[in-house]
Amino acid sequence: MDLHILDHRLRVTSICKNGLVDFTHPLIKLIFLRNRTRCKFFSLTETPENYTVVLDEEGFKELQPSEHLQVEGSVWLPLNVVSNGNASSSSQAVGVTKIAKSVIAPLAQQHVSVFMLSTYQTDFILVREKDLDVVIHTLEEEFTIYREVGGECSAVLSQEVHNGFQKNGKEAHQLTVHPVLIPLNHFCVMSLDPDTLPAIATTLIDVLFYSNSPKEGTLPSQDQDCIKFFSFSLIDGYVSLVMDTEAQIRFPADLLFTSSSGELWRMVRIGGQPLGFDECGIVAQISQPLADSDISAYYISTFSFDHALVPEEDIESVTAMLQQKRNEPAC
Amino acid sequence: MDLHILDHRLRVTSICKNGLVDFTHPLIKLIFLRNRTRCKFFSLTETPENYTVVLDEEGFKELQPSEHLQVEGSVWLPLNVVSNGNASSSSQAVGVTKIAKSVIAPLAQQHVSVFMLSTYQTDFILVREKDLDVVIHTLEEEFTIYREVGGECSAVLSQEVHNGFQKNGKEAHQLTVHPVLIPLNHFCVMSLDPDTLPAIATTLIDVLFYSNSPKEGTLPSQDQDCIKFFSFSLIDGYVSLVMDTEAQIRFPADLLFTSSSGELWRMVRIGGQPLGFDECGIVAQISQPLADSDISAYYISTFSFDHALVPEEDIESVTAMLQQKRNEPAC
Repeated sequence: MDLHILDHRLRVTSICKNGLVDFTHPLIKLIFLRNRTRCKFFSLTETPENYTVVLDEEGFKELQPSEHLQVEGSVWLPLNVVSNGNASSSSQAVGVTKIAKSVIAPLAQQHVSVFMLSTYQTDFILVREKDLDVVIHTLEEEFTIYREVGGECSAVLSQEVHNGFQKNGKEAHQLTVHPVLIPLNHFCVMSLDPDTLPAIATTLIDVLFYSNSPKEGTLPSQDQDCIKFFSFSLIDGYVSLVMDTEAQIRFPADLLFTSSSGELWRMVRIGGQPLGFDECGIVAQISQPLADSDISAYYISTFSFDHALVPEEDIESVTAMLQQKRNEPAC
Repeated sequence: MDLHILDHRLRVTSICKNGLVDFTHPLIKLIFLRNRTRCKFFSLTETPENYTVVLDEEGFKELQPSEHLQVEGSVWLPLNVVSNGNASSSSQAVGVTKIAKSVIAPLAQQHVSVFMLSTYQTDFILVREKDLDVVIHTLEEEFTIYREVGGECSAVLSQEVHNGFQKNGKEAHQLTVHPVLIPLNHFCVMSLDPDTLPAIATTLIDVLFYSNSPKEGTLPSQDQDCIKFFSFSLIDGYVSLVMDTEAQIRFPADLLFTSSSGELWRMVRIGGQPLGFDECGIVAQISQPLADSDISAYYISTFSFDHALVPEEDIESVTAMLQQKRNEPAC
């Protein structure tokens, strides 16, 4: 398989809930007005805690410094696994499960923090730019690695990497087993033709920017067992949306599409306390057992917590699996 | 003819050019998300100086106090003339011309300041709430006056008015003749089905909120002889748009409509210095000679200047008329 290091230098930021008003202007520009910005990688995810915005440096320029904006200090690079036809895996699973053993686990072993962003189209594995040498060295046995620069794609040669390469320490360490939350919402992972984005603009704006405003004649539905989670991304011209079925019914059914099987997904939210960005192996802890059972999973990291989405029919076995994990001695 | 005092208590505000970013959130709500607000009267006009926002008290609540927001101190009430079939006027002219002699001139004589807002559908004459008694007394000879309250419409009886009525002083006074500017843009006055507003949302958002942002691959067109002027209003469910032909081509032609004759309009901007809100007779100065010549005119007051729109074929005679006016001794 091929691994591509994509030509985006990303920042991971968070806008606090009551600060969104101040960022409506740049965010609407980044979402809807493609000819007014050079931003090519944009992702916005609402969670109960905040809005996580991951975007390239052109997009980041649009966000004015503010007390409401937190910015993770690193530049992150997105990696993308491309199946080149002769993949050895016989797995039918999609999402992060496919790369659990080949990418996620080896990087965790090398203590490389990853920030995952699954979309309708693919799964982006974000790593810190400073970890790139370790990443290449770790993954080059399994993958042919290409680096995209300015539209050109060239193979990364090992000798380039080995100069100055320092392997991260490999001392044994305790993995924290984080508590998980399993909300009752059912989610769908969808896409739409980017040319039809204007047709859903007012609905999308309403959902993204006004979901906390009271609505005429309706009481806000506050189901304690559900979670507020909505993710929009526009990456290299591709749109991906993750929303629960309550949000989905607000959009015109003829414009959004999901995979032909139209499956629904349940969420496993990882972390009782905000996870931070330095701990390694969080994705691995979840994705490894899913891979062992060949259960598909999307995985979306946000500023505070991680979120895995698994097929609704698998949620009970996943819950049992995670429960068992918690009862095992940490290794 | 009937004169209706509409059931809206309006505020006249101005957002400075670089403050628009801070007000994008409430303004998009007021324009596009009708079920999230009780605001029934909303108008936004961009001029080179600022954004004039006229809105009812429900809408005004959405605007947070800010150094970028100026608010005129009064509550304004919109008046509306309704032809009831047996109108005596034989004029074919539309807009403010129709009401120049019956409303504008008498109010100017009584020193009542007016703020005009012509739309595709009608012409609103805004007067200060504190002037209402004078307004009723002044116009009751010519009109049957109705007041709309909570959806009910009842005739205003003279005796109610005469109690406590004090006529404004009628001393002779010098009328300032303001300089005018005649930009080269051609304007159109348009409407659309409010249900199709979502279909033009991204274009309208782009024009209203991002017209000063640089656009990929294009240089901003800076024609010194043209003026930046764009007006949007959503009043009692009716949409009206005033834009120049350069903005018009950005909208889908099948959704916006104008009158069957599809006429274009030229602008006369009144005022070399900001006009303020206290001077009376400015609208009268322009509309009277237009009425004498039976030339149609829309009239849009903004926070700083007044703007009359006249048919393009009449712009030369209007220019000559105004030039002559400047040469007459002020009376």
